Amino acid sequence: MRIKVINPNTTLSMTEKIRAAATSVAAPGTEIFAVSPAEGPRSIETAYHEAQAAIGVLEEIARGEEQGFDGYVIACFGDPGLFAARELTCAPVVGIAEAAMHMASFISDGFSIISMPYHALSGMERLVRTYGMQAKCRRIRMLDMPVLDLEDAPSGSYRLVLDECRRALNEDHSDCVLLGCAGLSDVTASLSRELGAPAIDGVGPAVKTVESLVVLGLPGRAR
Amino acid sequence: MRIKVINPNTTLSMTEKIRAAATSVAAPGTEIFAVSPAEGPRSIETAYHEAQAAIGVLEEIARGEEQGFDGYVIACFGDPGLFAARELTCAPVVGIAEAAMHMASFISDGFSIISMPYHALSGMERLVRTYGMQAKCRRIRMLDMPVLDLEDAPSGSYRLVLDECRRALNEDHSDCVLLGCAGLSDVTASLSRELGAPAIDGVGPAVKTVESLVVLGLPGRAR
Amino acid sequence: MRIKVINPNTTLSMTEKIRAAATSVAAPGTEIFAVSPAEGPRSIETAYHEAQAAIGVLEEIARGEEQGFDGYVIACFGDPGLFAARELTCAPVVGIAEAAMHMASFISDGFSIISMPYHALSGMERLVRTYGMQAKCRRIRMLDMPVLDLEDAPSGSYRLVLDECRRALNEDHSDCVLLGCAGLSDVTASLSRELGAPAIDGVGPAVKTVESLVVLGLPGRAR
Amino acid sequence: MRIKVINPNTTLSMTEKIRAAATSVAAPGTEIFAVSPAEGPRSIETAYHEAQAAIGVLEEIARGEEQGFDGYVIACFGDPGLFAARELTCAPVVGIAEAAMHMASFISDGFSIISMPYHALSGMERLVRTYGMQAKCRRIRMLDMPVLDLEDAPSGSYRLVLDECRRALNEDHSDCVLLGCAGLSDVTASLSRELGAPAIDGVGPAVKTVESLVVLGLPGRAR
Amino acid sequence: MRIKVINPNTTLSMTEKIRAAATSVAAPGTEIFAVSPAEGPRSIETAYHEAQAAIGVLEEIARGEEQGFDGYVIACFGDPGLFAARELTCAPVVGIAEAAMHMASFISDGFSIISMPYHALSGMERLVRTYGMQAKCRRIRMLDMPVLDLEDAPSGSYRLVLDECRRALNEDHSDCVLLGCAGLSDVTASLSRELGAPAIDGVGPAVKTVESLVVLGLPGRAR
Amino acid sequence: MRIKVINPNTTLSMTEKIRAAATSVAAPGTEIFAVSPAEGPRSIETAYHEAQAAIGVLEEIARGEEQGFDGYVIACFGDPGLFAARELTCAPVVGIAEAAMHMASFISDGFSIISMPYHALSGMERLVRTYGMQAKCRRIRMLDMPVLDLEDAPSGSYRLVLDECRRALNEDHSDCVLLGCAGLSDVTASLSRELGAPAIDGVGPAVKTVESLVVLGLPGRAR
Repeated sequence: MRIKVINPNTTLSMTEKIRAAATSVAAPGTEIFAVSPAEGPRSIETAYHEAQAAIGVLEEIARGEEQGFDGYVIACFGDPGLFAARELTCAPVVGIAEAAMHMASFISDGFSIISMPYHALSGMERLVRTYGMQAKCRRIRMLDMPVLDLEDAPSGSYRLVLDECRRALNEDHSDCVLLGCAGLSDVTASLSRELGAPAIDGVGPAVKTVESLVVLGLPGRAR
Repeated sequence: MRIKVINPNTTLSMTEKIRAAATSVAAPGTEIFAVSPAEGPRSIETAYHEAQAAIGVLEEIARGEEQGFDGYVIACFGDPGLFAARELTCAPVVGIAEAAMHMASFISDGFSIISMPYHALSGMERLVRTYGMQAKCRRIRMLDMPVLDLEDAPSGSYRLVLDECRRALNEDHSDCVLLGCAGLSDVTASLSRELGAPAIDGVGPAVKTVESLVVLGLPGRAR
Repeated sequence: MRIKVINPNTTLSMTEKIRAAATSVAAPGTEIFAVSPAEGPRSIETAYHEAQAAIGVLEEIARGEEQGFDGYVIACFGDPGLFAARELTCAPVVGIAEAAMHMASFISDGFSIISMPYHALSGMERLVRTYGMQAKCRRIRMLDMPVLDLEDAPSGSYRLVLDECRRALNEDHSDCVLLGCAGLSDVTASLSRELGAPAIDGVGPAVKTVESLVVLGLPGRAR
Repeated sequence: MRIKVINPNTTLSMTEKIRAAATSVAAPGTEIFAVSPAEGPRSIETAYHEAQAAIGVLEEIARGEEQGFDGYVIACFGDPGLFAARELTCAPVVGIAEAAMHMASFISDGFSIISMPYHALSGMERLVRTYGMQAKCRRIRMLDMPVLDLEDAPSGSYRLVLDECRRALNEDHSDCVLLGCAGLSDVTASLSRELGAPAIDGVGPAVKTVESLVVLGLPGRAR
Repeated sequence: MRIKVINPNTTLSMTEKIRAAATSVAAPGTEIFAVSPAEGPRSIETAYHEAQAAIGVLEEIARGEEQGFDGYVIACFGDPGLFAARELTCAPVVGIAEAAMHMASFISDGFSIISMPYHALSGMERLVRTYGMQAKCRRIRMLDMPVLDLEDAPSGSYRLVLDECRRALNEDHSDCVLLGCAGLSDVTASLSRELGAPAIDGVGPAVKTVESLVVLGLPGRAR
Repeated sequence: MRIKVINPNTTLSMTEKIRAAATSVAAPGTEIFAVSPAEGPRSIETAYHEAQAAIGVLEEIARGEEQGFDGYVIACFGDPGLFAARELTCAPVVGIAEAAMHMASFISDGFSIISMPYHALSGMERLVRTYGMQAKCRRIRMLDMPVLDLEDAPSGSYRLVLDECRRALNEDHSDCVLLGCAGLSDVTASLSRELGAPAIDGVGPAVKTVESLVVLGLPGRAR
């Protein structure tokens, strides 16, 4: 099975993290191809970035159809272009935000989402409602930091994220945290260990969901 | 990976169907153990049956913990005992109703559930709300026939189900149908073919979801 | 009129409290029979306890049908076995959680539920949604103490409950508190007095609701 | 116990029906005083009628406080003036629409409301949402007839109501019907018998609810 | 175009503020007639006041029909008599609460409502739900002060309102505040300036909405 | 005041209709500039079209900022790019779908949306939920015809739309219909006349809403 994992932004260090996260959970027969669009925003922090990024995602899907893929992952925790992407292919397309929320539903009574930057809150709220997760999502916690700080170790971003996750467990009474940014996919294991509770990023769940849909013979929406 | 798939009723022909459905989608390294409780209802058509069946499910989970399983599936489309089962094990436990609904969310804009018998409607309505699927589930269609007719080919049950699925696609404008009974897990492929649209039973999605949770290192709720 | 009030756990001191609370509000012609199942959990703190307790409740309902009762109360604030119990009898069956919430709706603009122990939160959240009380229930406050501390005066549990009720009035702006445990049915009056606001346990409301349904000739669901 | 049952319109034949319905279910020690305001609409078919009727209701509550009542019923299935009435008295005030819906919740998995006239639909929809009954109320069926036809036997109104109730059971899959007009309180028993399913008017449930609140010591909102 | 702006209470200083706020945004050809009913509550702080005030509003609408108006504004942030008023005229009738919430929806991702006095909270909650604004309204903040303090500069009410608005921006993460009282319509601009974020009163939005409906040829509900 | 009305597709006959509809309701001092992007889909029938069209909309907003506009209308009944557009300007940006729904709320107790083509149903459902209009929108009726048939008189599209509007009034009990396509903005008056009930297109409401926001001094979201 060949899965194309599309990082909708153009920051290649993030694409590498995503590739690593996807590969680490892929089934033996699954090949992961992680790509970024040639053009587009360097990080996705606004609705404007999402609209731009959607175009890149759709081009990668269209190109993927020629290359012959069995499924696609949109690896940004805003799922840009998701519903449009499903119109371009009969293969399943899964966003990492929807995958994280649905997967968390099986193990969590109530989760918090940790994301950034602050003004992306209302977009995240719309996403939670779109997926019917109002009852499961106890709180959305937006950090006041740019996404690309995650690519910059000295920024201390890891510590900020960890502290916010701790607050989520203690104050929101959540039993797990969803890491609302693909740039956090490399610290999932480390955060889980320090928290003593699951930290879930969406890349892994999305890859496993695509694999499942393919095996189950469940096609995407374009039919 | 060893997954215990629990048919909560005691009709062994149904357990066999479930085993076959589970095995047909399991990953190469996954071993499926399909069981029924020693005692319990022959089919699960009422809330009373569900309460009884939950006990059998919980005993099979407890026994499974001694036997050493990596995950569990509750293979009745009412998910009896689900939340209690999760308290007994650190391994993931997935119900086939929740798995079918969440999996369908990735490929469907709106689905119908076909189930039976008629008076189980309100229980099904509660389930849809519990999983936050009110916006996705366009309609629940309950057939006026006993569950065990599905085990009796001459009853004509297949034709009744097929006709109801057709009505779901035409009248509800659903793009796929969820087969709300594990006793239908052997006709999923045939129904999909005749309908020209996905018919989704829950056994396959639940097995794939358990596999995914195990690979992702996401534990069940008992921690 | 003969009403069977079923304490779903096996702690007899709690059954006595329940009997006293039920008797104190019963109409002149109403006879209260308070019972516990022979077997079952000593207290009901988990979904697993609830599944077990449901069986005891259903057996008491079935036995009640031979004994000839006019109605039933399930006296645990999780209403275990409620929907199944209604299938076994034409007499009304009322749970104390649903009775408390519906009765409070007539006098309250917004209430808080005080219950225990902490990990029962998500079950309580499901209950509130099942009864359509999301708009009325301002907050669920779970105390971090075992249920049976309520049977043990020196544990100081009364003071903990009182303090939490005070926080509910002050912080949640609720105008009354629902005592989410039958083990609190003996301190309802005392708490109301100290709070200067209604503290509502479910046993009284459930008994009055069964009496009302019988007088109104409104049968249970099994018809 | 003295309960004042207020018919918010000035049609005395309706007040008599309400008195009879209230008296027939009142407990031995309960005295029912059924009244109409001196002025107000002859029937309540519009929001404008409701606004006018609310004033009459509030005057009757204020007068009732001087007369010394233990509780009040507002006997129009739109509950005019309900929230304001509760500010005028420490005694409980119960509307027949809210009482009918809450009481039905204990015996019904899904009900239909039969009311009239047609253009009152949106007011009824708001009422269902105000009481959190969206999940319980399967459908509101408004008859295209004036309320006062119910006071006029030759109008054939009984037959129209009966037919609509039958459609509610058959088409909406409801298990009981709520009679959304106090003018139907005299045919509740007859309709139930002909339907073979509960027809619930609100007057009886409201009287029993006021009695219950008084016995439970649960005061109204004015404190 | 002639618009009648009805202050439902009898405090003329408030009517003057409303007139000024309405006039300041009216289109060149719009004539504003601001009135108070001859009788009614001096301020509207309770549901009882609202029921009384609704009568005055309806009388002003009826009189307005003889006087020949093109539209009406109900200038109390509880919209008393709104649905009834629409039955009396083919001209549009707009309440300032609904106008403020709908207008805010076009510029806000999440707003807070600042109103008073404290016990009016539940009425405000019902209003937010009636208009479908649950997802937009982040929090309702009720000040513990009487409405008429707003007419009394030395009371320090302005400072209290300003401080609460600041808390709304900082704690609720709202991007604008709705001033839930017509008595605040004279400080909208000043509050916006001090906050650095929009403070929206309802009088202006309601006038502009009536103007828009008239130009669009959209009649009121009475047809 | 200068308002830029952006037709997100490239069919100029539709842009002309939109310009006419906008101009016909604009206030005396308002100048309407109706434009189409240089590139983009000829009609917007899918989520893919919407993603593409959003880019054109955003470019027109960005260009508009240099040209100096006081506000913007996005004239496609899917509001493509709306939330992103608001990040690019301090001027108000209003979509015709949101404007139509909010404006209809002031005169309607329940409306139906008539749109096309069939497979755009789920996008329309998401839009209704995004704007909190679930309680107001009685039904979405999608015609099985391409959008561009509206530009082709002999296609008989007018008759199809009229018939569907009639069904909405009769079967859904809606009191007005929302025309869910800018291509219908030239037949609003004619449909209203033939129906005897308001047919509301979004272009007029959006222009009036932008004018109102500008007069009220309510800025867009970018601040």
